[in-house]
Amino acid sequence: MLELYHSGLSTCSKQARLHLVEKGLNYVSRYIELWNHENLNPEYLKLNPDGVVPTLVHDGVAIHNSFVIMEYVEDMFPEMPLRPSNPLERAKMRLWTWTADDVHHSVITLTHSRNLAQPSKALTPTDIERIYAAMTVPARRERWHRTVTHGFDPADIDAALDQISHIMGRLDDALADGPWIVGESYSLADIAMLAIVHRLDELTPELVAPAARPRVADWYRRMRARPQVAKVYTQGEAETPARPKAMSVAGIA
Amino acid sequence: MLELYHSGLSTCSKQARLHLVEKGLNYVSRYIELWNHENLNPEYLKLNPDGVVPTLVHDGVAIHNSFVIMEYVEDMFPEMPLRPSNPLERAKMRLWTWTADDVHHSVITLTHSRNLAQPSKALTPTDIERIYAAMTVPARRERWHRTVTHGFDPADIDAALDQISHIMGRLDDALADGPWIVGESYSLADIAMLAIVHRLDELTPELVAPAARPRVADWYRRMRARPQVAKVYTQGEAETPARPKAMSVAGIA
Repeated sequence: MLELYHSGLSTCSKQARLHLVEKGLNYVSRYIELWNHENLNPEYLKLNPDGVVPTLVHDGVAIHNSFVIMEYVEDMFPEMPLRPSNPLERAKMRLWTWTADDVHHSVITLTHSRNLAQPSKALTPTDIERIYAAMTVPARRERWHRTVTHGFDPADIDAALDQISHIMGRLDDALADGPWIVGESYSLADIAMLAIVHRLDELTPELVAPAARPRVADWYRRMRARPQVAKVYTQGEAETPARPKAMSVAGIA
Repeated sequence: MLELYHSGLSTCSKQARLHLVEKGLNYVSRYIELWNHENLNPEYLKLNPDGVVPTLVHDGVAIHNSFVIMEYVEDMFPEMPLRPSNPLERAKMRLWTWTADDVHHSVITLTHSRNLAQPSKALTPTDIERIYAAMTVPARRERWHRTVTHGFDPADIDAALDQISHIMGRLDDALADGPWIVGESYSLADIAMLAIVHRLDELTPELVAPAARPRVADWYRRMRARPQVAKVYTQGEAETPARPKAMSVAGIA
């Protein structure tokens, strides 16, 4: 049995969910609400001590990290492969899944400063103490400290935008050999980068608009036309419920 | 034919070099001197547009990124496997190669602030302009800007140390099921994390000392006892020449 603990349309959750749907694998959906910090609930921390989503539980064994999960699912369920069989194409694919992970550091800066800083004002000082006490990973505490208390340095936001724009330029170049990121093979590269481009379309649409990145915009349109993508990326389905009205710590205990 | 462009004892070069040596694969060594910025030479940028090491060239085709290179070498040369055959153990291995890459962000902050900031004072303003002009990746320019000009925020250095210490704690826990990071199988996890621990032993030895992390210290001792590791990690061999006396831009043109 496969169980996926995820938070719907968060970047890494989107990757793991779309991968399972593309492979036609059934899984039990376990939704974790990030806005009430259910990811820091002691029960979930037993499954994932870093308190991050997604976690795949396969016959009772937990596997962490969307990239590790996707490679595991390919190793375990080789039917309908989403890794090219040729080692060189597979390396190209992995450079893109790595790039999706690397640029996510910059995307997180945007997500936190533009989407989370304002809602986090609803948290009381006691709430914030509870979040820090439950957060085991120092780099995540540091990021929340910037989001909730210290604010983001405008220079850091500019640096994030520069890096994201650079990677979108590289993606536009790669798609010249399309139709997919690794040429003829629809692969984990497309699944991983879609989660990034979808978030950018929400936060900084000018960076992925046809005028700026025509091949990226065309690929994004073709991706969204896939029924599997439409199913996974639609807000308001069972796996993508609306956010609570306010951020809270109600999910911790 | 395999050619490896590398810079000796830089973190990612150590990973790719040790992997090839452990597999007994012959390669032509192409040393790239980072201290004179040969990695930004136009000829090298043709092979690796990001201007980073290592690059593996296999029969004329360039493959980038130490993690992608290691997976490629395993896919292409399956003899003497350094990935476990069991999918679950392979997932554990990949969570550690991913962790090595992730914590490297924090390690880079230490390397730049402690090892590179002072030597970079030898660069003239014209040198610095040439470096920025040749550096294609915004996140790398930003990091050099901090190293050479702006300096690192002490809070960022503290955050890096906290994160590194946390990961060393996780590594100590993982080694309880040793002898290797993924239990019985010596793997890419050991090769990837060794490069991190070796750098920490140079920069912050207290974080990997027996008193702080006894299992990490014992594993590190056993790793260095491997003849392959001793060969790759010894300073002053053909692949690990002494650094130039001063940082420069002599390698760019």
